Order: sequence, then structure tokens, then C-alpha cells
Amino acid sequence: MKLHDLAHQLALTVEGDGQTDVHRLASLNTAQAGDLTFVVSAKYINALRNTKASAVLIPEALVADAPCAAIVCASPYAAYAQCSWILHPDSTPAPGISTSASVHKEATVHPTACIGDFAVVAAHAVIKEHAVIGANGYVGEHARVGAHTRLMPSVVLADHCEIGEHGRVQSGAVIGSEGFGFAPSSEGWQAIHQVGRVKIGNRVHVGANTTIDRGALDDTDIADGVILDNQIQIAHNVKIGENTAIAGCVGIAGSTVIGRNCQIGGACNIVGHIAIADGVVLNAASTITQSIVESGRYGSAMPLLPVSKWRRTYAAISRIDELVKRVRKLERS
Amino acid sequence: MKLHDLAHQLALTVEGDGQTDVHRLASLNTAQAGDLTFVVSAKYINALRNTKASAVLIPEALVADAPCAAIVCASPYAAYAQCSWILHPDSTPAPGISTSASVHKEATVHPTACIGDFAVVAAHAVIKEHAVIGANGYVGEHARVGAHTRLMPSVVLADHCEIGEHGRVQSGAVIGSEGFGFAPSSEGWQAIHQVGRVKIGNRVHVGANTTIDRGALDDTDIADGVILDNQIQIAHNVKIGENTAIAGCVGIAGSTVIGRNCQIGGACNIVGHIAIADGVVLNAASTITQSIVESGRYGSAMPLLPVSKWRRTYAAISRIDELVKRVRKLERS
Amino acid sequence: MKLHDLAHQLALTVEGDGQTDVHRLASLNTAQAGDLTFVVSAKYINALRNTKASAVLIPEALVADAPCAAIVCASPYAAYAQCSWILHPDSTPAPGISTSASVHKEATVHPTACIGDFAVVAAHAVIKEHAVIGANGYVGEHARVGAHTRLMPSVVLADHCEIGEHGRVQSGAVIGSEGFGFAPSSEGWQAIHQVGRVKIGNRVHVGANTTIDRGALDDTDIADGVILDNQIQIAHNVKIGENTAIAGCVGIAGSTVIGRNCQIGGACNIVGHIAIADGVVLNAASTITQSIVESGRYGSAMPLLPVSKWRRTYAAISRIDELVKRVRKLERS
Repeated sequence: MKLHDLAHQLALTVEGDGQTDVHRLASLNTAQAGDLTFVVSAKYINALRNTKASAVLIPEALVADAPCAAIVCASPYAAYAQCSWILHPDSTPAPGISTSASVHKEATVHPTACIGDFAVVAAHAVIKEHAVIGANGYVGEHARVGAHTRLMPSVVLADHCEIGEHGRVQSGAVIGSEGFGFAPSSEGWQAIHQVGRVKIGNRVHVGANTTIDRGALDDTDIADGVILDNQIQIAHNVKIGENTAIAGCVGIAGSTVIGRNCQIGGACNIVGHIAIADGVVLNAASTITQSIVESGRYGSAMPLLPVSKWRRTYAAISRIDELVKRVRKLERS
Repeated sequence: MKLHDLAHQLALTVEGDGQTDVHRLASLNTAQAGDLTFVVSAKYINALRNTKASAVLIPEALVADAPCAAIVCASPYAAYAQCSWILHPDSTPAPGISTSASVHKEATVHPTACIGDFAVVAAHAVIKEHAVIGANGYVGEHARVGAHTRLMPSVVLADHCEIGEHGRVQSGAVIGSEGFGFAPSSEGWQAIHQVGRVKIGNRVHVGANTTIDRGALDDTDIADGVILDNQIQIAHNVKIGENTAIAGCVGIAGSTVIGRNCQIGGACNIVGHIAIADGVVLNAASTITQSIVESGRYGSAMPLLPVSKWRRTYAAISRIDELVKRVRKLERS
Repeated sequence: MKLHDLAHQLALTVEGDGQTDVHRLASLNTAQAGDLTFVVSAKYINALRNTKASAVLIPEALVADAPCAAIVCASPYAAYAQCSWILHPDSTPAPGISTSASVHKEATVHPTACIGDFAVVAAHAVIKEHAVIGANGYVGEHARVGAHTRLMPSVVLADHCEIGEHGRVQSGAVIGSEGFGFAPSSEGWQAIHQVGRVKIGNRVHVGANTTIDRGALDDTDIADGVILDNQIQIAHNVKIGENTAIAGCVGIAGSTVIGRNCQIGGACNIVGHIAIADGVVLNAASTITQSIVESGRYGSAMPLLPVSKWRRTYAAISRIDELVKRVRKLERS
């Protein structure tokens, strides 16, 4: 691809030779001839000066330091993301329903949608234009998949649940499982029928083997632009605000409300029935047991130590309240 | 539905107008006309007095405060759970084997059972009356599914494993995977063939994408009435006692034995080869590295702090054993 | 099976009666007549002397203490692992493609391979000799499965991903999901197309519902002999060295490099872009936020305490930097 054609698609301008051929993305350090790379700030100026890339996505201020052709842009990383789909196009399958799929006669599948091998689309489900239901997938009764949304193989979207447009759901994700609602009784745990839905907005990414429980009565809500990594557990009636990003292995217990534009690090655990403000950033592996009312960055993970030192630390922590008392006694004497 | 008909099904009595229509469940605060709600204690008396519900499940002592018709009951929350299935009946699929399913000729499927699209039932498997095997599910050789048990779409029940009656297994759950048993050898890890089973009792709930490994030699055992949330990992030869409830994202390592009536909070991690007594309650995100011999509530999660304060805390914890020595020195001087 | 036949297969020798019949494995304490057991060291000498097993795998030094026939071996546990496959052979399905499978005409399936019911093998995929693709599995375009590798039911191996020979992948595992690569932009998160692969070596075990993301540009690499337990999350571009063992529920963030012969305990969380040296052993539930440059054992988990004591401990930890200051003040006075 010619660099000026690429710049044209991005509505940006070229500095240097627009006839430069680019056909692959690469990082500054690993790029070779024919590669397009990117640089976000002066911090990487040495790597920039030495890159072997044929072209670079670059902010105005660094153009003079580029040893190759350049596309000038305010947000090189976002431009790089766009280029990743232009230089490496998605292998969208051909439209149509596989002869081996099971599509209920009362389901509505747009002619431009694709239903893969052994996929099930149940009664009254609606699959919109250019949506893709991967092989071995399941779309339950009255469920809805928005335009241009792609479910990779082996995704479950349960009855009455919905996902909007331009979404992407990785394999093994389960959307609409019945949540953990049980009442104690004299005969043991009595299940509460979970009759709410999962409602997912537009441009939402759901990672592999992530689970999202349907609401107990009301819905579980995932707003537009939310991105969810793999193996996240979202319990019933959770609400997640726009453009919040959640890394892998996070667990969120029931009825918790998470604001907009949050960034939740991997393996955080968030208890139920709390609220997290907009713009909160959580370090990986934090435990959140109370509401967070102010935006900002928070953490709770423990330091890793060589095991012999750890044993002493562990023992000392177990007795820390005693240590506090000893210090108080010293202060009084 | 008329309130007196509902009360009749619960074998309970109505205070007020038995002709009241109820057709939906709702919480005290969100209930509208036509809704049935519940209240468990005097703690919620203000919400009770102001509820717009048409009827309430209520203990005797609070009847006078109900602004609407009432069903009197000792356990309103358990009654509410029962009502959730009466007012919102389960959408059980019709009995019979889908024409697209693969049922081995030596499998035994009761005529009242339902086998979904693309489900596989292998040789010598037994599916009892009113059981449901969801679409894309797998029931291995010699596996058994008890009466009225429902496997949602995409569940795997591996060879020789069993689940009892009135169970419910959410999508993506894997029951009977081969556990992590390897012997070190000069050529690397040597796998130990895992030949035990998973045996699950009656009235057990298994959450979405939860995994339960088969025993190495003996069985992995899940007793009657156990409820397991999503994304739980249960390793080989674990035993879990009756009516124990385990929240999402818990990991339990091999051969650990958990008692009856325990409540294990979300994201707890429990090492292998230990025993946990009956009636133990674990706070969310606790790490359990030793046996627990007494019932009671335990915790180990760390406090969440703003990140600048957290960094100092983290540093101080790393040096806590040194701090202990300094205090000892002060005490001696 | 006669003991001397078994010893012959292991290329080992019998002490005592080689005509002894053995037909099952069992532990020292639970073994009965007909069982083969093993003992690794003198630590178990009392259990050895009292075992009811018919035969024992035993180091030379303990032969005199065996109350039964014995096979003498340097590594009884590894020999036991070998015996587990001889006494309890794997139920490998018959070769051939199920009539209900969907194998693309441009896929290459070796005649000795087995493709299960409703499995999908996409265009240009290659399935080598004696490989098994379980029911409801998915092997994407250009993906490759090595000889003697077995994918249990409902495994996803995405486009262009590869697994070597003699591997074993448990149900629900997803290999080759698109990782969590997004650039912030004025219109929200912009996805970066993930175009790398997952490359898995020989003799690799992948646990149930474990997820391994494909690389963003370069590959995610799992070396020969790596063993991965259930519900592990491996992000894009992670590299894992030979014979490293990782227990269940571990999360590894993007681009982290883990050495050879490491042992990572269950539920550890490892941040992205760090390196872990060869031979590192991590206690269960540790959080790793920095590179580890020296082999050795490390830990970070918190002590479990009864909840009232825990509350005081938790409060004291939150104020530990203040406590440090108080001690410093005392030291100065």
C-alpha cells in the first residue's frame, strides 16, 4: 500500500515520500523495510532516529527527527489502531446461514449476517446486518445482536439478552447466565428465578470466557464503549458506565455500579452493592470492599518478598495490632 | 394472579384483600401497582410504609405496618424465592431429542427429557426424567444426569461423571476435566492419568464457566444442596459438604475438604490438602493457606488506599519485621 | 496384569513375586489387595509397612521395608505416573471423521486422526496423525494440531494458531482469542487488530477454560513441556519457558516473559511487561508487580485471621506509615 493512500484513508498528510510502500505494522525497534511504526512522544526519540521502518505515524513536533517518511497526526497510537485494520483486514466470513446451523423459523436474520456451522439461533431472536454468529454459538429466544457485531465461535447469548452495534465477543463468553440469587430456607438454599436481562450497548468488547449474569429482576447493564478483557465475572444487576476498561480476571459482585471512564486493573475484586465513581483507576489485584466516591488511582496489592522474609513479614502483620499497643505504651512511658 | 391463589400454593394465609392481582416481583422501593414485594425485618419499616406494591410477603410482627395486602410468612425471603418461579415460570423446553442432536444408540434418554440442538450424549450415558441437556452440550460415556436437572447450552459433563436431581448448570461449565496431576521426571512433567469421577448430589447449582476436575483415583465430591457461582475452579479430589455456598471466582486446590454450611466469599483462594470446618464464613478475597478447625468468620483482604498512601504502606509492610525489631530495642532501652 | 509384565514395560526389575496381579493404582493408605502403590522416601515408612497393597513402586533403599512385592525405581512417583496410563489406558476414540462434523474440503486431516461430533475444522487447518478433536470443538483456518495431541470437547483453537505433538487441552479452553489491545481516542477506545498467533510447543497441557490470547503483532509463545492448569489467563505476547508449571486461576498480563522450570502457585497475578527468571517458585495467591531476576521462592499472600482480629489488623495496616513515624520519633527522643 502506498503511504499517501493510507494517509488519505486516515484524512492525514504525509511528510516525505508518499510513494513509500508499507504493508505491515511493527514496533519502532523491530520494524524493517516495508513496515509502518508509530511514536507517541520525545521519550522514544533515540529509537525513532534508529528505526528501520519505511514510515512512521508521528506527532508534528517530532517530524524533523524521523529518518523515514511520516504521517503526521495528533494521536499516533489511535492512528496506529486504525491502520491495524487497514493493513491487516479482518477476515469476515461470507454472509449467509451455514447449512449446518439451526435457525428457528421465527428468528429474524438479516441477509447480510453470517451464521456459522452448528450455531443455534432460537425463536424470536434478531440478528442485524453484517452481524456474525460464530460456529457452535448460541443465541437464545428473543435475544438481539446489533449490526456489525461479531460473536466468535462458542459464545452463548442467553434468552432475552441484547448486544448493540459494532461489538466483538470472544470465544467462550457467556452473556446472560443466571446469577447467584438464593434465599436460605429450612430445606437449604432456595433459588430465586433470575428474570432480568443483560443489556450491552454499542462498541463493546467482551473477552474470552468472560461471564455476565442476567439481572435478578431489573437488568445488568453494560454501557456503550465498555471494553472487557478475558475471564471477567460480572454478577447480576451490575451497571458499568461508558468507556470503562476492565482488565482480565476481575470479579464484580452483584448490584455494584461502576462509573464512566474507569480503568480497572487485572484481577481486582469488587464486592457487591457498592458504587465506584467516574474516572477511578485501580491498580492490578486490588480488593475493593467499600464505595469509592472520588476519582483517582487506588491500590491494595501486597509486596512480593523472598519466602523467608515473607514468613517473618506475614507473622508480623498477624500481630500488628499488638505492635501498635506496644508503641502506644512506649509513647506513654 | 390473585393473591389468595398464590398464598394457597405457598400454604400460607392472606391478610387483607385476597382478590388483589399480582403479576410481578419487585423490591420494596421500586415496586408499583401489580407488584409483589417482601420485607424481612423492622429495619425496613419506612420503606414498607411507603411501598407502592400491591402486596407484600411479611413476617407476622410487621403486618400492621403494611400499606397493602399481605401474605404472612416466617421466612419472607424464602417465600419470595418460591414466588419467583410461580410468577415467572421457567421456560422449560419441550421434551424430546432434537433432530440435530447426536445421541448414541447405547445411551438411555428418558422420553420426558429434552436434548437440544447439536448436543452430544455418548454411549452408556443416562439422562433421567425431565432432565434438559442444552444446545451444544456434551454428556460423556457413562455419565449420568438426574431427574429435573437442567444443563444450559454449552455445558460439558465428562465421561463417568454424575449430577443428581433438581440441579442446574450454567453455560460453559466443565464438569470432569482432567486435573493438574504431574510427576517431575528427567524428561519433564509426566502426566498422571486422572481416572476418578466427579460426583454431584441433588439440588446443586453450578455457575457459568465453573470447572470441576475429576478425581485422580478417588472421586471429587459435591454434596447435596451445594451452590457454586461462576468461574469457580475446583481441583481434583476436593470434597464440599452439604449446603455450602461458594461465590464467584473462588479457587480450591486439590484434595481440600470443605465442611457443611460454609459460605465462601468471592475470589477466595484455598490451597490444597487442608480441611475447613463446618459453618466457616470467609470474607471475599481471602487467602486460606491452613486448615480452619473452628466455625466462625475469617478474612485476609488488604485495605484499598489512594495510590500515594498505598506506596508508603507497601514499603512499610515490606520492612515490618525490621520495625518490630526497632520497637523491641526501644522497649529494652 | 502380572507385576513382571508391568516392570518389563517400565524397563525396571521386580523384588519379590513377579506373578503378583495388579490392576489398579491406589495410595499407600487406601490400597487393597490387587492394588499397586508407591512410596518416595523414608518419611512414609510406617504407612509402607502397614500397606495392604499387593505391590509397591519403591526406591532401592526401602525395599527391605516393603511388606509386598516391589518394583525398584529411582523415581517412584514418575513411575507411578507411567503406570497410571498402563493400568488405566486412555479411552482414545476410534480414528475417522464423525459424519456430523464439518471439515472444510481444503483442510488436511490425517486418516488416523479423530474428529468428533459437531466439530469444525476450517480451511487450510492441519490435523496430524492420531490427533483427536473432541465434540463441538473448533479448529480455525490455517490452525495446526500436532500428532497425538488431544483436544477434549468444546475447545477453540483460533485461526493460524498451533499446538505441537503429544499435547492435551481440556474442555472450554480458548487458544487464540483476541487480546486486550485498545488505543484511547476522542471517540473512546479504538481496538488494535490482533494479528499475531499462539504457538504452543510439544507435550503441553492446557487446563479447562484457560484462555491464551494471540499476539498483537508477534506471537504468544508457550514452550515445550509447559503445563497449565484450569482457568489461567495468558494475555497477548506472553512467553512461557520450557517445563514451567502454572497452577489454576493465574493471570498473566501482556508481554510478560516467564522463564524455564518455574512453578507458579494457584491464583498468582502477574502484571505485564516484566520478566521472571528461570526456576522461580511463587507461593499461591502472590501478586507480582516487578521483574524477578533471581531464582528462588517468593510469596505475598496475607494471613487469614478471625474477622474481629482482622478488622483491627486491617485498620493498623492502613496506618502503618504513621506507626513508622511514631517509632522514629521515639527513637529520637
